[in-house]
Amino acid sequence: MSPKPDGASVRHLGILAGAGRLPKEVAEARRSEGRSVFVVDLEGAAADWAADFAHERVSLGQVGRVLALLEREGCDAVTMAGGLTRPSLTKVRFDRQGLALVPRLVRLFRRGDDGLLSGVADLFEEHGFPVIGADAFLPCSVAETGAIVGELSEEGGVALGRAILDALGPFDIGQAVVIAGGRCLAVEAAEGTALMLDRVAALRLEGETGGVLVKMPKRGQDARVDRPAIGPDTIRAAHRAGLSGIAVEAGGVFVLDAARTEGLARETGLFLHGFEP
Amino acid sequence: MSPKPDGASVRHLGILAGAGRLPKEVAEARRSEGRSVFVVDLEGAAADWAADFAHERVSLGQVGRVLALLEREGCDAVTMAGGLTRPSLTKVRFDRQGLALVPRLVRLFRRGDDGLLSGVADLFEEHGFPVIGADAFLPCSVAETGAIVGELSEEGGVALGRAILDALGPFDIGQAVVIAGGRCLAVEAAEGTALMLDRVAALRLEGETGGVLVKMPKRGQDARVDRPAIGPDTIRAAHRAGLSGIAVEAGGVFVLDAARTEGLARETGLFLHGFEP
Repeated sequence: MSPKPDGASVRHLGILAGAGRLPKEVAEARRSEGRSVFVVDLEGAAADWAADFAHERVSLGQVGRVLALLEREGCDAVTMAGGLTRPSLTKVRFDRQGLALVPRLVRLFRRGDDGLLSGVADLFEEHGFPVIGADAFLPCSVAETGAIVGELSEEGGVALGRAILDALGPFDIGQAVVIAGGRCLAVEAAEGTALMLDRVAALRLEGETGGVLVKMPKRGQDARVDRPAIGPDTIRAAHRAGLSGIAVEAGGVFVLDAARTEGLARETGLFLHGFEP
Repeated sequence: MSPKPDGASVRHLGILAGAGRLPKEVAEARRSEGRSVFVVDLEGAAADWAADFAHERVSLGQVGRVLALLEREGCDAVTMAGGLTRPSLTKVRFDRQGLALVPRLVRLFRRGDDGLLSGVADLFEEHGFPVIGADAFLPCSVAETGAIVGELSEEGGVALGRAILDALGPFDIGQAVVIAGGRCLAVEAAEGTALMLDRVAALRLEGETGGVLVKMPKRGQDARVDRPAIGPDTIRAAHRAGLSGIAVEAGGVFVLDAARTEGLARETGLFLHGFEP
């Protein structure tokens, strides 16, 4: 395997596009730099925007077809971006190459999300497509150190949240917790940050406010697979949960649609803070 | 403070009764031993069954009234049992003695559930009522070591769950996790075991089964305040979530309504296992 190119040296990027804003942001950032992309729309997750770019829609089981498409398009690297619901293997439509991989996929499915995504990245690299983390193409949307919006007001909560996430580090669990009043209200696992924040909103008593969402990458997370992110929806959900703000690991968490995310934080009075890893 | 009496030496037990089966089980167990109890029905949480015993319904802020009642009834010890939603301090109806305690209660509210309950236990002890864990009155309903129902089939999941709960030990978070396929699906925090299991049920794909609920006491949990419990509702919720079974720390977790809980586990095909602390 040749050494991995960084974002700047990639000529024609294949984007394996799941749901959410991240894959679209990558495609648009590339275009604004005069680069071309090819969007592999996974099960229609990118249907809303893929038509603006060269693209094909594929089923998750069409591994052979995806590899052939990347080959045909002359992609020199691939990035995996956006969310995907874990599919039931019995419901996926496989092509012949996909079917041959089923035993390997079954093994990958037994691992955490990280393990699964790492295994898929390995698969593409074995076929000659280096896999590069989406952040390489979105350098300015990674959270920076210090105050991003407003002023940090829950130092104790942030410290407790970080300690809890550090303790959970070895277990490939979630990347986020909510702390309020010195108490951990919620730990994210497979449900994701959005559902965790909804739960906190439901748990809180009328008029109860304060607290902080703390989010950081898992220890040893594969940098090729997409990193934890916050975006406009996170701000809205944190606001509904009555939180005072959001603290993320600087350099380790994406801020999607940064201008809008920061604007919403300002509007809703939430602080947004990046802490040193 | 005099040395704490154990369950057998208590003559007339005051039961501070929250929601759920535990306080009723304590009251019935005492009666079956020919002992009397006095039920303090907290905000009507025990309204369904308290009428079968000497009882009074109180608001959470009526601290003075509760102490006067326990005195009047001649209770020689108190147990706190059953669940309570954390009330908003602004919504509680206080009596004079309760109001005088507000600053102290505000401080307690800043601590985790354990801290709050320990602080309340201290308060009763300061007024001459020893606080005894409900388990002292329900000796046979504590989970035992080994197979309780069926046969343990998720050793790896139990080991991972215990490791995660151990790692969370210092943080006064939840007492339970769900592991399936080597992956942590959910971590319990303030929402409680029931809602966590509902979440797992919602996360699972159609027909997806397997996995284990692992439950154990928090490290350093105050033995006077009620310990983690499972009961018939836990079995039903675990079954809805498609789990294979439930593993609890032997000696550390109550089994409420044990005959019914075990019967339901048998019916639904769930194993129930107690592991050594």
